[in-house]
Amino acid sequence: MAPKWRQLADEFAHQIRSGDLREGDALPQIRDLTAQGRGSTTTVQAAYRALENEGLVRIVRGRGTYVRRQRRRIVRQSQSRYQWEKDRALLPEDERRKTGVTEQETGLRTPQLAFHASYQVRKAPPEIAARFGVSPDAQMLHRHYRTSSRDDTAPVSLVDSWIPYSVAAKNPELLDSGREPWPGGTMHQLATVGVELGEITDTISARPPTAQETTALDLPPGTSILVLHKASYTLDGDLIEFSEVILPGDRVEFLYRIPLKRWPTS
Amino acid sequence: MAPKWRQLADEFAHQIRSGDLREGDALPQIRDLTAQGRGSTTTVQAAYRALENEGLVRIVRGRGTYVRRQRRRIVRQSQSRYQWEKDRALLPEDERRKTGVTEQETGLRTPQLAFHASYQVRKAPPEIAARFGVSPDAQMLHRHYRTSSRDDTAPVSLVDSWIPYSVAAKNPELLDSGREPWPGGTMHQLATVGVELGEITDTISARPPTAQETTALDLPPGTSILVLHKASYTLDGDLIEFSEVILPGDRVEFLYRIPLKRWPTS
Repeated sequence: MAPKWRQLADEFAHQIRSGDLREGDALPQIRDLTAQGRGSTTTVQAAYRALENEGLVRIVRGRGTYVRRQRRRIVRQSQSRYQWEKDRALLPEDERRKTGVTEQETGLRTPQLAFHASYQVRKAPPEIAARFGVSPDAQMLHRHYRTSSRDDTAPVSLVDSWIPYSVAAKNPELLDSGREPWPGGTMHQLATVGVELGEITDTISARPPTAQETTALDLPPGTSILVLHKASYTLDGDLIEFSEVILPGDRVEFLYRIPLKRWPTS
Repeated sequence: MAPKWRQLADEFAHQIRSGDLREGDALPQIRDLTAQGRGSTTTVQAAYRALENEGLVRIVRGRGTYVRRQRRRIVRQSQSRYQWEKDRALLPEDERRKTGVTEQETGLRTPQLAFHASYQVRKAPPEIAARFGVSPDAQMLHRHYRTSSRDDTAPVSLVDSWIPYSVAAKNPELLDSGREPWPGGTMHQLATVGVELGEITDTISARPPTAQETTALDLPPGTSILVLHKASYTLDGDLIEFSEVILPGDRVEFLYRIPLKRWPTS
């Protein structure tokens, strides 16, 4: 049997998720719930704090507890996503322009998405140089992306991407952030300089957000972030692009399918 | 250029990771560092707090800052792991007994691992009933596992596993927790009741630990947990086992390889 505060929290969580309580609605005042015999002040406070930590409500001191805007859950399925991106890179520009992977994933149309890109040519930081197996003096194209839903205001992800400058510079358009969002994305950009990807690896870890990430992603208190390290390899197995993708743990999950080989029939 | 506290924190983090500073070593007193002109009290405190949040040191109020035991990093590679488990389920018992997946993954030998299993037959909680598509009255075998490294004291993972009772009961040995660790694990257990797995899906999310999880996994402050929902399907695509695996974010990362199909040569 769950403790009383947890039961109370679950009851309100259910009302919020089912839509019985909606964005901006006030939860009952603590004194009203205690008067109704729903639990002590401590119990109700613990329940409301749990709901706040789960990102469902906002507690405004001296006023009350209010339902937050419920964010769209995003399931990131890298296996189908990356192959879809690769196939799309071969399509004519007007086809590529129609939709990108973020639209596909979030179910939002392009006008609902706000996209920011900034580019910088700089020396590889030591951990990036080590990944690419280049000297720390090697020049890299460092790209930063932030994609938001206009409905949601908060970004869906923060991305830092690294490509060797010597590769990107083969097509000067790849050095111009003004061309973003590039129809067909990184896979098409790389295709313009003769690179076809053979494999991508996803490495996933979790940590608490920094203060800067909390602000940038508008994270409710008690949210963790998922850190995706995405490494793209050429057909020859050379690392050609590396991204760190910061995703809000209250909205995003990863899904991988692992088919298994049949047992031999004997 | 990173802020001064970050540079200072990175310097000590490097010394800890390289082994120049070892478990139990004291970091310099704050007043000594400020006297050496390494930064203000605020700067040094911020650096030490960042190291504590990253799990590298322990701050003991009024005494000093000490290097924590550095935990083994575990890279969980589900794709090779699950196929390896499936292949192993066909081996004779003495082969299966030799090593399990945790040993393979952590590089530890069986005597260094402490393993606890507890079993319970109970009604499916609503979210489990919904996953299996059974009524909430359906009986399930609920198994809880906790695996620790004797070196580390803290568990590597906490696992809650669910199997329909009607499936498990076909082999009464599957209802006896005293038979754990079962040589060959769940894949072999299922094989004894005629079940071959066709696919497993991993769904990964992140959240802050509960107070109970912080204690059970001995988590340093400022650690997130990774939550793996592992769903095992039969060859016919029916869900046959579902596990929630709680993994400490300061020690574990997931790695998936996504090979891409070649572009057609035209």
